[in-house]
Amino acid sequence: MAPTRVGFLGLGIMGTPMARNLKKKGFEVTVWNRSPEKAQALAAEGIQVAATPVEVAKAVDVFCTCVADPSALTEVALGEQGLLRGARKGQLFIDFSTVSVGLVQQLAAQFAAHGVDFVDAPVTGSKGGAEKGTLVIMTGASDAALAKATPIFQAVGEKVVHCGPVGAGTQVKLAGNALIAAMLQGFSEGMLLTAKAGVDPRKFVEVVQASGFRSPYYDFKGKALLGRDFATHFSIDLMHKDLSLFLDNAAVHQVPTPCAAVMRETYNLARAAGKGGQDITAVITAYEELAGAKIA
Amino acid sequence: MAPTRVGFLGLGIMGTPMARNLKKKGFEVTVWNRSPEKAQALAAEGIQVAATPVEVAKAVDVFCTCVADPSALTEVALGEQGLLRGARKGQLFIDFSTVSVGLVQQLAAQFAAHGVDFVDAPVTGSKGGAEKGTLVIMTGASDAALAKATPIFQAVGEKVVHCGPVGAGTQVKLAGNALIAAMLQGFSEGMLLTAKAGVDPRKFVEVVQASGFRSPYYDFKGKALLGRDFATHFSIDLMHKDLSLFLDNAAVHQVPTPCAAVMRETYNLARAAGKGGQDITAVITAYEELAGAKIA
Amino acid sequence: MAPTRVGFLGLGIMGTPMARNLKKKGFEVTVWNRSPEKAQALAAEGIQVAATPVEVAKAVDVFCTCVADPSALTEVALGEQGLLRGARKGQLFIDFSTVSVGLVQQLAAQFAAHGVDFVDAPVTGSKGGAEKGTLVIMTGASDAALAKATPIFQAVGEKVVHCGPVGAGTQVKLAGNALIAAMLQGFSEGMLLTAKAGVDPRKFVEVVQASGFRSPYYDFKGKALLGRDFATHFSIDLMHKDLSLFLDNAAVHQVPTPCAAVMRETYNLARAAGKGGQDITAVITAYEELAGAKIA
Amino acid sequence: MAPTRVGFLGLGIMGTPMARNLKKKGFEVTVWNRSPEKAQALAAEGIQVAATPVEVAKAVDVFCTCVADPSALTEVALGEQGLLRGARKGQLFIDFSTVSVGLVQQLAAQFAAHGVDFVDAPVTGSKGGAEKGTLVIMTGASDAALAKATPIFQAVGEKVVHCGPVGAGTQVKLAGNALIAAMLQGFSEGMLLTAKAGVDPRKFVEVVQASGFRSPYYDFKGKALLGRDFATHFSIDLMHKDLSLFLDNAAVHQVPTPCAAVMRETYNLARAAGKGGQDITAVITAYEELAGAKIA
Repeated sequence: MAPTRVGFLGLGIMGTPMARNLKKKGFEVTVWNRSPEKAQALAAEGIQVAATPVEVAKAVDVFCTCVADPSALTEVALGEQGLLRGARKGQLFIDFSTVSVGLVQQLAAQFAAHGVDFVDAPVTGSKGGAEKGTLVIMTGASDAALAKATPIFQAVGEKVVHCGPVGAGTQVKLAGNALIAAMLQGFSEGMLLTAKAGVDPRKFVEVVQASGFRSPYYDFKGKALLGRDFATHFSIDLMHKDLSLFLDNAAVHQVPTPCAAVMRETYNLARAAGKGGQDITAVITAYEELAGAKIA
Repeated sequence: MAPTRVGFLGLGIMGTPMARNLKKKGFEVTVWNRSPEKAQALAAEGIQVAATPVEVAKAVDVFCTCVADPSALTEVALGEQGLLRGARKGQLFIDFSTVSVGLVQQLAAQFAAHGVDFVDAPVTGSKGGAEKGTLVIMTGASDAALAKATPIFQAVGEKVVHCGPVGAGTQVKLAGNALIAAMLQGFSEGMLLTAKAGVDPRKFVEVVQASGFRSPYYDFKGKALLGRDFATHFSIDLMHKDLSLFLDNAAVHQVPTPCAAVMRETYNLARAAGKGGQDITAVITAYEELAGAKIA
Repeated sequence: MAPTRVGFLGLGIMGTPMARNLKKKGFEVTVWNRSPEKAQALAAEGIQVAATPVEVAKAVDVFCTCVADPSALTEVALGEQGLLRGARKGQLFIDFSTVSVGLVQQLAAQFAAHGVDFVDAPVTGSKGGAEKGTLVIMTGASDAALAKATPIFQAVGEKVVHCGPVGAGTQVKLAGNALIAAMLQGFSEGMLLTAKAGVDPRKFVEVVQASGFRSPYYDFKGKALLGRDFATHFSIDLMHKDLSLFLDNAAVHQVPTPCAAVMRETYNLARAAGKGGQDITAVITAYEELAGAKIA
Repeated sequence: MAPTRVGFLGLGIMGTPMARNLKKKGFEVTVWNRSPEKAQALAAEGIQVAATPVEVAKAVDVFCTCVADPSALTEVALGEQGLLRGARKGQLFIDFSTVSVGLVQQLAAQFAAHGVDFVDAPVTGSKGGAEKGTLVIMTGASDAALAKATPIFQAVGEKVVHCGPVGAGTQVKLAGNALIAAMLQGFSEGMLLTAKAGVDPRKFVEVVQASGFRSPYYDFKGKALLGRDFATHFSIDLMHKDLSLFLDNAAVHQVPTPCAAVMRETYNLARAAGKGGQDITAVITAYEELAGAKIA
């Protein structure tokens, strides 16, 4: 049987290694990226490069998107050269992006009208997980669509959590990112306050990691913060977008989420300070500058 | 050599098992509690019971306190029947409570004037850690005082982190509790929003525990929340006090801590709703009541 | 010269008296409303009623909209029976709604392509100002469009502030509403705290009104709160929408607005508690219920 | 009848003109200030200068305090050279400071034990009101004590609001200052966002002042902000203290006050940025620096 032909659109920090893993696992892969250099970089690895999303859609059985935000996804899916123009009955559309619940539900409906199944499948695991193929995938899909998507998921991740119908994966993903923001903010406030109070923040990190509220995340980010390593794994701009989407969900469903609301403004402040492209660990540096103190 | 005589004042959720562990490890233990029934309960186990703090101070080599808040500690240490009235040169005062940095520094100075060393040694590990003797102890002390306290610490905890001079243990403890509040708030907001949006919150918990931001704390509290088990391990009243103390520290040292500030008002809201004595997991139930939705 | 023919779409708390004032000032008025009863109520007053927005556009020289939110305006302007379908060169489109800056800029561009000038002209003054024709109008428009709109403005308001090009009126309006939310929240928190602390909140109101920070708004809302009069002048749902739009602006322009962010969640909480249709003064009643205390 | 002998302790921005007004109205005035130069400056005006608070207490019938914070008042009233050491039956103690409710209640009790009546009488009106004698005075006192204090109040203020028993004046004052913080923050956020969005913030100020939510305060502070006049009328440090005290009250009485909580951290941020001594209008400059935009 011929290998499944898979399209991958969006070759950022996450998309590039995901496309590579699909190729490694034997899929026939066609990619597209808005800035073509990133696609060309994969051509040497036996991955085909398409000039437009519609060209990808025409060439494959399954198309996957992993782009930065709702407007980018709207353009790729519904634009003049978008996937919908090349869609045909029996295809599968997997969106790995983190966008709004409303948008994935709208895409599901529009592609269903062309006989295309849709799965929202945002991922967590950051750059490292994308490279190792150990992502956790939150899916919103019918059982049938999920079954079709499973071989793809096995190629890029190690765990799939089926959260419910289309949109449910995005709901869980946004809540997860709001959780990360809270975890990191509490951690950063503690580090900066202990440091400015004259206590070695390494002691704070040591206590966290010895306690019941330890987390691999605190191990990872504790080292990064203490070493002032702000290399971007997940950018302030993207987290700001996700907090905004989470808060929009909270508004739709009328659930007060004061912690997320305050986080959003904290990220807004970091963006105002020109740090939007930096890793979320760099949020605290905006306070450092104000407070005249450093965590390390 | 005669066993060290240790006094223990404050027999709450934490203090009672800590006093028992000291007895088990061979110390000669004398206890006192404001409401005497809790002390009497230990008499059958070979633990001596004193009628006043001053009586404890006179009878022991080391006295330990583990009380609810700054005013309780002030009364036990400095009141008319307080420890200071019975203090003598060469003794050691270990405070396991979580109070203000200012108060532990003041006590250290006042007891030093009587030749008594002081260690602030707040603990984390909750009820279970106190029972099993696996607490993590954050200490603020001179090296000499710490050395004297070590056998006591080994009897009640499994890890000691020496954070710096007197007050440093309290700084780290307060930052740790503010971190817990942020972790739990992010988790609770996510659970309530996914639930009200029609997504099974068990899926959210499953994703958290499969991801890099998993934590034993989320395993523990996830089960509690999904099972609606609000049995008190750490009360809303106590967390509210600790967030207030953390924010006071932040004010003293001029570090903006917006996340902790919002948490404090969230705990204030839960207290206003009559939930002060319940576990911190019950904070979300105040929102549940408002939002007409439940996490489980 | 024949009177200018003016269309008015959206007959809510504000729109109905504004349409009446246009009629009174001699304009020939045609109205439309989504639920037709409100339009029929005006028929007896010599106001014409149209069945669709497009019908209004065809019948008039100037069309005015005053609807609840961005989606309602989009439908009225761009829907299948929308104004654009009836638009013709030389007309003027005045939007009195409060919607997003992005939407008014988009409408301006789309109607300009048909030769129609556009003015965003959100108003303040609440129900009473609409009835008396004393609204304050914040406009975003070219000088030429503003000149054409001026006779209309004089019929419904008493002051026009030209804030800049299209979108500028909306910017200022959203900032004004965020300001109102802050003013009212500070007032409400103070009243509830003094009341629960056992101090007559009328004393608080008296002090406010005797001080340099007095305001006609505090006079108006102080009486309403003390009299527990929550009749809707401006609903919690609408303020929640405006705070959301203000925060979206803040995100676009990267300005941290922590006060507005917290207000939005406070309004979210009030909506969750089922108070969305009530006046913004009723926000405090959600806290009253939690806190077991009343402002009056 | 000999003029009443009045002591005045604390000669800051408010205290100096208040003492002068007492002298002008015919009282025999004795002053004390921690840094003696400020007291000496008044000697040429026929005002007597005492070396210590106790000396003031011995020389007068009524003593008034107007100091910066709870610790300063505690020292002046209860310190080794404090007022209590010179207090005698029949005297009156008027505190014009803004401190905690707990402290004024404690002072009332301690001075009552010496036969001295106590009135808490915080004022509003800022520097200008103190100079003109047009302060608004919020009093907490028994009717008898209030009657004795009235001639003093008439010399320094133009309106007295009797809020209730001792502590009630302070409750209302703290709520009033939290209100001012909310008013100013909403105003500042709106100005900075409109400015950064390219809209002239003078238009925003013009709209505010034309609307029902206008206030003399916005007139005053609007001119200051547009003119970048940050001369200190009321310092960031003092507002931060008052917000902290208000939040402590809110904690005691269990009333959620999320707006005040966020304001406190905003002031904390401004203090961290080294602006503590500047006027509260300068809070926004911390955001300006971050946001790379100016209100004017």
